Amino acid sequence: MVEAFTVMNAVGLLAFAVAGSLKGAEADLDLFGVAVLGVLTALGGGTLRDVLVGRVPASLQSTADVGVALVGVALAVAFVVGSEDVRGHPALVVSDAVGLAAFAATGALVGVDAGLSPFGVVVLATLTGVGGGSLADLLLTRVPVVLREDFYATPAALGGVGYWSATAAGVTADEALLGTAALVFAVRVLAVRGDWRLPTLSAV
Amino acid sequence: MVEAFTVMNAVGLLAFAVAGSLKGAEADLDLFGVAVLGVLTALGGGTLRDVLVGRVPASLQSTADVGVALVGVALAVAFVVGSEDVRGHPALVVSDAVGLAAFAATGALVGVDAGLSPFGVVVLATLTGVGGGSLADLLLTRVPVVLREDFYATPAALGGVGYWSATAAGVTADEALLGTAALVFAVRVLAVRGDWRLPTLSAV
Amino acid sequence: MVEAFTVMNAVGLLAFAVAGSLKGAEADLDLFGVAVLGVLTALGGGTLRDVLVGRVPASLQSTADVGVALVGVALAVAFVVGSEDVRGHPALVVSDAVGLAAFAATGALVGVDAGLSPFGVVVLATLTGVGGGSLADLLLTRVPVVLREDFYATPAALGGVGYWSATAAGVTADEALLGTAALVFAVRVLAVRGDWRLPTLSAV
Repeated sequence: MVEAFTVMNAVGLLAFAVAGSLKGAEADLDLFGVAVLGVLTALGGGTLRDVLVGRVPASLQSTADVGVALVGVALAVAFVVGSEDVRGHPALVVSDAVGLAAFAATGALVGVDAGLSPFGVVVLATLTGVGGGSLADLLLTRVPVVLREDFYATPAALGGVGYWSATAAGVTADEALLGTAALVFAVRVLAVRGDWRLPTLSAV
Repeated sequence: MVEAFTVMNAVGLLAFAVAGSLKGAEADLDLFGVAVLGVLTALGGGTLRDVLVGRVPASLQSTADVGVALVGVALAVAFVVGSEDVRGHPALVVSDAVGLAAFAATGALVGVDAGLSPFGVVVLATLTGVGGGSLADLLLTRVPVVLREDFYATPAALGGVGYWSATAAGVTADEALLGTAALVFAVRVLAVRGDWRLPTLSAV
Repeated sequence: MVEAFTVMNAVGLLAFAVAGSLKGAEADLDLFGVAVLGVLTALGGGTLRDVLVGRVPASLQSTADVGVALVGVALAVAFVVGSEDVRGHPALVVSDAVGLAAFAATGALVGVDAGLSPFGVVVLATLTGVGGGSLADLLLTRVPVVLREDFYATPAALGGVGYWSATAAGVTADEALLGTAALVFAVRVLAVRGDWRLPTLSAV
């Protein structure tokens, strides 16, 4: 079971790194900038999570995660050089949803372990899922996509609620982790297929 | 005495959440984005403060603060939906000054407790007071208002100086806390009434 | 030997504070904003470094560093008021390279001390060197200069690689520190003289 989760996490790192690198290439950054955007998108959420609970970021301690992220950067560079437009490609969208699911679930787990309030757990799940992409957006001086009419942060937040409720109800951490990931993935995929959006106040 | 401070803090959370949510609604964020801006404006300064001194953020551990912040978000949504323009309303300006005062005072207290230098205490007082609003500005890719011709961060910084001096002179923490809050509030209200501004270098 | 390093560090704080203050003055911030930009550019990288490894930032604990930074702010204000355009002045460019070298070296040292992976050491060296300027850019809602066709972050990253390799090979921390600083300085100065740039993907 834990192996399944490790695979989901790696898929997510790869997909996030590809997406971040493409964003950097589009903004005409140099190669260093493209790599920074890719790696930051992949590792930024987990780094924020660890800093918030006072841990030295796992991203700076292991080499495996950054290795996967750099593969994602290389893939993205190959796509751009080959003039292949992969944005919106179903494989990328699904991998991205897998990453959101895995990251939100680990965020919730770390939050519960650190003794956070339910609100804190939801914040940590959400930030772990969307923090990397949002940091990348900020570096490009863009309003983070997740704040605008998009159903992307919401599945991660729901995952936080789900994980907290499950562990409060006595479910084991391993089971809650996988259940949360499945929930986030399902909600995100449904949201993409159904083009779900949250209303803006001007539309009310 | 401590109760008075708790009330000031709650008033500040409410006022900051209303102001942040209005900013988000104005930028046409979706409902999730509006709530993020409101909660971040209310809790962001204290979160920065705690991260800087290596504490797990109080904002992620208690539920009371985020509850008050969410009430502020709901209020702001009601104002927007009811097309009531409350910006600049005296009640909001005064509540905001109360919040700045309470937040700057707690920032100074945490800084002295953590053994920071006088400079560190001033930074922590200022960041606790203006950090939430500045983070919200950054998410909207705006230069934080406090960096431009405005007398908003200055009262908070003066509060840091005041608190540090008072405790160095042997005043108890409780008294210094209330005295600092009173100082920050008075300076801020005078600044608003007198339309005080710091000069820019181009005006020199 | 350690004294030489202390001097390099002080030169760097001064140069970074001047550069940051000039940036703030150019953006027409008020005096408080100019000081914030100057101090943040000087101390921001080291602060990020300390927060990432879970230390209370040295910048908030000592008074010497901020004193040097404030001298830099005052210098910059004097330049602006005297209408002297010092940007690109060789003295500033060389001092800036000295700062980049000293900061990248301390970042690498702190990273190795904290037991980070080689990747973590490189990240910490780079962030310590370029983090302050990048935070200042973000406050002004600009894409950090280091992400765009510039050979500025690369010397710092190379310094991280150099320091890690040297200590892994058994070189003492003191020697590795000075060697790293020399390496970063040399690469940066060569890059400026030769107008080195990393390619962008659109140029590939």
